Amino acid sequence: MATATTEVNVLTADMLLKNWQGHRKLTRRVIEAFPEDKLFQFSVGGMRPFADMAWEFIRMAVPIVDGVSTGQWKEFEGTKPATKAELLRLWDAQTDALNEKFPKISPHRFSEVQKAFGQWENPGIVTIQYAIDNEIHHRGQGYVYLRALGIEPPHFWERD
Amino acid sequence: MATATTEVNVLTADMLLKNWQGHRKLTRRVIEAFPEDKLFQFSVGGMRPFADMAWEFIRMAVPIVDGVSTGQWKEFEGTKPATKAELLRLWDAQTDALNEKFPKISPHRFSEVQKAFGQWENPGIVTIQYAIDNEIHHRGQGYVYLRALGIEPPHFWERD
Repeated sequence: MATATTEVNVLTADMLLKNWQGHRKLTRRVIEAFPEDKLFQFSVGGMRPFADMAWEFIRMAVPIVDGVSTGQWKEFEGTKPATKAELLRLWDAQTDALNEKFPKISPHRFSEVQKAFGQWENPGIVTIQYAIDNEIHHRGQGYVYLRALGIEPPHFWERD
Repeated sequence: MATATTEVNVLTADMLLKNWQGHRKLTRRVIEAFPEDKLFQFSVGGMRPFADMAWEFIRMAVPIVDGVSTGQWKEFEGTKPATKAELLRLWDAQTDALNEKFPKISPHRFSEVQKAFGQWENPGIVTIQYAIDNEIHHRGQGYVYLRALGIEPPHFWERD
C-alpha cells in the first residue's frame, strides 16, 4: 500500500534538538581528544585544523536558531578561541543557549522559507539540518586527523 | 513564548527521503572523484579505503528501510564490487530501490521501536537518521582522502 509520505510526520522539534545535542556532545569529545597544539595547527591535505572547524560550528549553531526563530540573521559575536579550554567553554555556553532558544522556535518557522544570512533560501528545518550535517561532515574529517596522529577517536555512536 | 516542542512536527517522510537522496547524490560524486585504484586502496591513518565505506552505506540503506518497513532485519545480499563501475551500478540500483520502498513505510513504523539487525534498539526514524549521519560522517573522511591525493572534492552543499 502506497502512503502519501508528504503528509507523514516523522520528527518532532524535540527529537531534532536531542539528535543535534547528541552530535554536539560527540563533537565536544573530538575537540577534547586533540592535543592542544594539534587542535590549532594539525591538518591533512592542506585542510583547516579542527579548531577552525569547531569555530565554524559555533558560528552557525546559535545564529541559525536565532535566525530561524526571529527572521533576523546576524553573525556570531565573539572572537575565535585561542586555547582548547576557551573553545570548550564557548562550546558549553552554546549548548546552554541552544537548549534555551531552540524550544522557543515557533512551529511555523520550521517550514517558513527564509534567506539565511541573506544568502541561502530554505525552510527553517532545512537550514537547521544543514548546520547539523555540516558538523557531522567536518567532524568526520577530524576523525581522520586524530587517526593520522595515532589517536583513537571517540565512538561515532556515542551521543550521551 | 515557550512552545511544547514535543508536539511540533518539523519533518515529513517525503522531506527525509529527499534529504537522504540528496546526500546520496553527493556521495556518488565523491565515489566518482576517486581514481579507480585509490578508491579501493588509498587511505589515511590506517583507515578503510573509501570503497569500503561506500560498500557499508549500501549494506545499510535498503536493509534498514526494509527492516523499519517490515520488522524483518536481513543483511544485504550481494558481493562487494571490485570496480568503480560496478560500485556505481550497485549504488544506482539502491537509489531506485529506496525511491520505491521508502514511500511505502507505514507511518507508525517511524516511531515504533525495533531492534535493528537484532542489536540496536531505536525508533525507526532514529535508525534511518543514523544511516544518513553515518554516510555524512564517512563521506567527510573521503573528502580528506581526496584532498590528500590533491583532488578537489565536490561541493558539500551540492545535492542535486
